[in-house]
Amino acid sequence: MKILVCNDDGIYAEGIIELANALSEIGTVTVIAPKTEQSAVGHAITMKVPLRVNEHNFGNNIKAYAIEGTPADCIKIGIKNILKEKPDIIVSGINHGSNTAISIVYSGTVSAAREAAIMGYPAIAISITDHRPTSFEAANKIAKDLVQKVLNNNLPKGTLLNVNVPNLPLKDIKGILPTHQGLSKWDDVYEKRVDPYGNNYYWLTGHMEELDTEIYNDQIAVKNNYAAVTPIHFDLTDYKAYDELKTWDL
Amino acid sequence: MKILVCNDDGIYAEGIIELANALSEIGTVTVIAPKTEQSAVGHAITMKVPLRVNEHNFGNNIKAYAIEGTPADCIKIGIKNILKEKPDIIVSGINHGSNTAISIVYSGTVSAAREAAIMGYPAIAISITDHRPTSFEAANKIAKDLVQKVLNNNLPKGTLLNVNVPNLPLKDIKGILPTHQGLSKWDDVYEKRVDPYGNNYYWLTGHMEELDTEIYNDQIAVKNNYAAVTPIHFDLTDYKAYDELKTWDL
Repeated sequence: MKILVCNDDGIYAEGIIELANALSEIGTVTVIAPKTEQSAVGHAITMKVPLRVNEHNFGNNIKAYAIEGTPADCIKIGIKNILKEKPDIIVSGINHGSNTAISIVYSGTVSAAREAAIMGYPAIAISITDHRPTSFEAANKIAKDLVQKVLNNNLPKGTLLNVNVPNLPLKDIKGILPTHQGLSKWDDVYEKRVDPYGNNYYWLTGHMEELDTEIYNDQIAVKNNYAAVTPIHFDLTDYKAYDELKTWDL
Repeated sequence: MKILVCNDDGIYAEGIIELANALSEIGTVTVIAPKTEQSAVGHAITMKVPLRVNEHNFGNNIKAYAIEGTPADCIKIGIKNILKEKPDIIVSGINHGSNTAISIVYSGTVSAAREAAIMGYPAIAISITDHRPTSFEAANKIAKDLVQKVLNNNLPKGTLLNVNVPNLPLKDIKGILPTHQGLSKWDDVYEKRVDPYGNNYYWLTGHMEELDTEIYNDQIAVKNNYAAVTPIHFDLTDYKAYDELKTWDL
């Protein structure tokens, strides 16, 4: 089995090192990941500056390339130009920090997997619910199991799995739930500061506005110590509104 | 009526100047847009460097701010910190180049409107199907009309309209169709070059893979000289796959 591994925290992040090593137990892993951290870049792609590709010493006989670009760039150029054989599956992560509810929209980790889905490949994005993960044991095991399950069950083309795993040892994870995307979101606060030259600048901060209640929301599932598996796709059409729009006098 | 105008081509682009001036005929416009071009940044937000806000002389008595950040940043800091009164509607564009089918995923123009929808505001993204638009007449009129229609018809919260207008004079536009997102996408080709220092680099190029056939796809509608109006939302869950996932032994 040929597995392409990517992330958005960059090729030096602990999460991708854990993931690539765990998946190399079940297949041949190639890592193609951003050279530097690309958190919250969403589905950005690089068009106005040229992309650069650097071979990277990842250790453990894992072939690796560091891309001076975004997670979506890594998947595009990885599949089109770098890999000699097409991968069987793409896994993106393990992200440091959850990608649940509205955060999915901003996530580079999810976008790498989504780019793979757009290109027609099975794909999984996987995150741990803490920015400083203390245990990769559960996420590593779930990643390995899900790779097999995705390939055995044949997800519809264009659908990827977005997986969030509580930052707990495996024995404390209550189970794995199929979930949908919650509505909880960051209520943004921009903290204003003044630089040494007298100019204002702003830092994005805020707090999570918890708008979900039901256990089958990704947000609530992980809060209750379940791993959450949400199938997502890239057809953004709101079909209910589409039907309504037909009644408008456009 | 208070209208917030944004884009991804940057505050100096012809499209946003056209749009802001057209909309100032029906309301009070404030422009909050990226200082520099931010095409294809997707739903990126700025977290690792501080944001800066600059007052900008836009002319025609339109208040304007240039943000050193992404389109989504503009909406967030615009609504949270810059505007004294909340806007009635957000309009993003007029983008130079279409945002149909899979291109929606990469679009900064659409992401600005989507960020507004996430924050609970009515929102429209509008694009012209040419990177060098020759006629803004139709797009300007459609933008003005749709602002009124969106406010009169009450779109569901979280749903925005993604509008694509052919690059034609108004009289040559055949009509306005409600559409859904097509599946056509770029088949990427990375053009390899060597820099003067002997290092490889790559430019993203490619050609559009036309996968749509039906007139109610955004891609096909504009090709047939219709303006296309697609309602999109930010719940990415694939509910069919979610139901299927329940049958898996997770």
